Amino acid sequence: MTEAPEFRPPPERPFPDRPPQDPPAEEREEEAARDAQDELVDTVRELLDEDQHDRVRALLADLHAADIAQVIEHVGPGRREALVGILSADFDAEVLTYLDQEVREEVIELLEPKDLAAAVAELETDDAVDVIQDLDEESRREILDNLPPETRQLVEEGLTFPEYSAGRLMSRGFVSVPQFWTVGRLLDYLRAAASVEDSDLPEDFYDIFIVDPAHRVVGAVPLSRVMRAKRTVRLGDILTEAHHLIPATMDQEEVARKFRKYGLVSAPVVDEAQRLIGVITVDDVVDVIEEEAEEDLLRLGGVGEGDLYRAVLDTTRSRFSWLAVNLVTAIVASLVIGMFEAAIEKVVALAVLMPIVASMGGNAGTQTLTVAVRALATRELTDANALRVVGKEVLVGTANGVLFAILAGLIAWGWFRDPLLGGVIGAAMIVNLISAGLFGAMIPLVLHKLKIDPAVASAVFLTTVTDVVGFLAFLGLASLVLL
Amino acid sequence: MTEAPEFRPPPERPFPDRPPQDPPAEEREEEAARDAQDELVDTVRELLDEDQHDRVRALLADLHAADIAQVIEHVGPGRREALVGILSADFDAEVLTYLDQEVREEVIELLEPKDLAAAVAELETDDAVDVIQDLDEESRREILDNLPPETRQLVEEGLTFPEYSAGRLMSRGFVSVPQFWTVGRLLDYLRAAASVEDSDLPEDFYDIFIVDPAHRVVGAVPLSRVMRAKRTVRLGDILTEAHHLIPATMDQEEVARKFRKYGLVSAPVVDEAQRLIGVITVDDVVDVIEEEAEEDLLRLGGVGEGDLYRAVLDTTRSRFSWLAVNLVTAIVASLVIGMFEAAIEKVVALAVLMPIVASMGGNAGTQTLTVAVRALATRELTDANALRVVGKEVLVGTANGVLFAILAGLIAWGWFRDPLLGGVIGAAMIVNLISAGLFGAMIPLVLHKLKIDPAVASAVFLTTVTDVVGFLAFLGLASLVLL
Repeated sequence: MTEAPEFRPPPERPFPDRPPQDPPAEEREEEAARDAQDELVDTVRELLDEDQHDRVRALLADLHAADIAQVIEHVGPGRREALVGILSADFDAEVLTYLDQEVREEVIELLEPKDLAAAVAELETDDAVDVIQDLDEESRREILDNLPPETRQLVEEGLTFPEYSAGRLMSRGFVSVPQFWTVGRLLDYLRAAASVEDSDLPEDFYDIFIVDPAHRVVGAVPLSRVMRAKRTVRLGDILTEAHHLIPATMDQEEVARKFRKYGLVSAPVVDEAQRLIGVITVDDVVDVIEEEAEEDLLRLGGVGEGDLYRAVLDTTRSRFSWLAVNLVTAIVASLVIGMFEAAIEKVVALAVLMPIVASMGGNAGTQTLTVAVRALATRELTDANALRVVGKEVLVGTANGVLFAILAGLIAWGWFRDPLLGGVIGAAMIVNLISAGLFGAMIPLVLHKLKIDPAVASAVFLTTVTDVVGFLAFLGLASLVLL
Repeated sequence: MTEAPEFRPPPERPFPDRPPQDPPAEEREEEAARDAQDELVDTVRELLDEDQHDRVRALLADLHAADIAQVIEHVGPGRREALVGILSADFDAEVLTYLDQEVREEVIELLEPKDLAAAVAELETDDAVDVIQDLDEESRREILDNLPPETRQLVEEGLTFPEYSAGRLMSRGFVSVPQFWTVGRLLDYLRAAASVEDSDLPEDFYDIFIVDPAHRVVGAVPLSRVMRAKRTVRLGDILTEAHHLIPATMDQEEVARKFRKYGLVSAPVVDEAQRLIGVITVDDVVDVIEEEAEEDLLRLGGVGEGDLYRAVLDTTRSRFSWLAVNLVTAIVASLVIGMFEAAIEKVVALAVLMPIVASMGGNAGTQTLTVAVRALATRELTDANALRVVGKEVLVGTANGVLFAILAGLIAWGWFRDPLLGGVIGAAMIVNLISAGLFGAMIPLVLHKLKIDPAVASAVFLTTVTDVVGFLAFLGLASLVLL
């Protein structure tokens, strides 16, 4: 079939004989990009301090919205108000979508409702929903009232879906046609629709969705496949059946997992009658995927959410509660030590050595905990392999327990010239590392079963266990053996 | 222009009057999906134990490659060999791309080189490179020698790029045409090329790249824009200039950051002469983005990489080194306590209370550390705001230090009926929480400057600091005040 009238061989794809391998130069480039951004922030700061508003505006005029967002984030809370004031008259709503949650709320409060509404009206509906959903009822009303009626209706519809659901994430712009259409008819339809002012054809789309008369999804045809097909081909003959329908109420983390697991690029969102109401593309879920992993990291570290841009007072308050819980844990450990005051008074070496057992247990338990929490989040740890994982962690705890019992035992023996003391610390080490493995795996599993986020609560329980068991085993054994 | 011959209004988009809001039902559905997967794994296990190989093969025959991968991961190391043996004759290479790194290596070793080569030949080149790159030289050669010459050349070219670079991540399948081509000519070209057997037209593509005669990227036209344009439109007139060229040697994490920052869907990869050699789409970087966040989480937890699927011995070994480092840290803390044996002998209450100060410092420091490590990874913490962040963390530490000084002081006073002891623990608490804030922010920053991964090394240094400062401040002050 190479007789097609205008067929020409594809332009040759050159390939360098020697691949470009110059990591230092590459690194310098990255470094340079970073420095340029830092320098820009410094310049903006200086100009703000000198009240040179026009120069700030000129400097930022040609930047990508993502870069402007970064400048707003980095100038610091003091100068942020002035900067937003300068940009407010003709605020680029795209900037809002790139801002960190905390900073975005601050900026929204700094903007006049009418400026904000004008900005939001420029956004795609899913981005507009994303921006508006965090506002309180009053500001939300105010902005919605200032939107053009059509946009407003779409945004209000988006807001009716539960928070963090596929419905909030999806884009309403998609192209859906019946399966008897041919490629030619589709192309003519798209070309005609595009030339109509104010058509509701989305700016970007990646699949043509094929729907039945009840508007239920039958399948999808990727654009690249449409373009390869001749005009006479029926779309129904080249569609891929839709396997991965996303219900609009599905939790966004579940959506992200589905995209990751099956390597999806886009998936149709349907209502409870299986009718097509939107589409989610992989770039929409990238943020969800990263936030999910980041959330676990921050929660395990005892911080609720990223607070880099928060004020001192807010940060202090948000971290206080976690520390307060830990104070209780520490006091429980102290109560255990208090039971053995008499023993410590006789053998002070016990006070010197006791933190070693507790701390090793804490660290070993945290290793297990981290793996378990992450595996629960990614659904790699399920009922099917829970028992095996717990069993394995106990075995690992036993193995490392024996190894560190020998090490710590020898050290204690040499330090205090007392083989019995060495034996006691060794035995306590084995007990504590086994319990660290057991509880490090069990605690997240149990919390998960109880529908409590294991990333938030696991660490407290674990520290309590490893401290109590560590002090109890070491001081208890010592009381029995040494006194 | 609504006179286009076949134009028809788009099918009506129904929208439910009442959005489907039934989270419990939704949750039940997820639960059901999870249980179904668990049940499948259980069934496969039973069948394997009963040597019912044909039934296993039948059960897995119609599953998505991602689901098969999950079964292979979840049946456990003992049964994995048998399962891979059953699947090996006609192994679906797609499954390899979905497997966890650890399990994938195991499966590759279980497959015969010729079965593996047959499987790899089916893959897209970037996936093939991904699978082959982890093998040792010998197995790599063996597979490459078994590949068809053309695939082999592309795979070998891919392997010449540095590990974790854009060159390894990119797909070689793209469509590039000169800018004087019209939409009509492009469509004819694609249709003709598609009807040629063995054409090198990629299966999926999202942009048409426009190149100059030297094959340098001039810009790109998204497919959705091509489809909206009339046949006579010149591609040069509707292209978007290429802003985000990715050099083939760019580190994959840098690529991921760029995609995230600018919300990219796809970006062209170029060689050092700016010639187009590949394309990276957002679905290629999803894994990189998640792995990056996950890596930080696991490293902070003291585990090098996900080890859920590793054998007990490997896991024990990989965790040993981190625990050994922590043993040294714990001993340093014990040495500090040892300096105050005399004081502890006189006032045993010191031994009871001392872990409180150290543990609160450790937890407060970890909060700061977690935020700082993550912000460094996402480039939100840079030279431009480093000083401000450190200053803020010191202030937060001071504020929480004062609060917990009062709490712990009152508790110690009440417990041991000694106001002086309360004062000592309070003062030590303030000192330790301030140093926790200072070092929690400084340590990752300094390590980052020294090009050491802060996620790996920060925690050890921090624990040492908060333990030493905690014990030193509390016991030292006590020696001065109480004795």
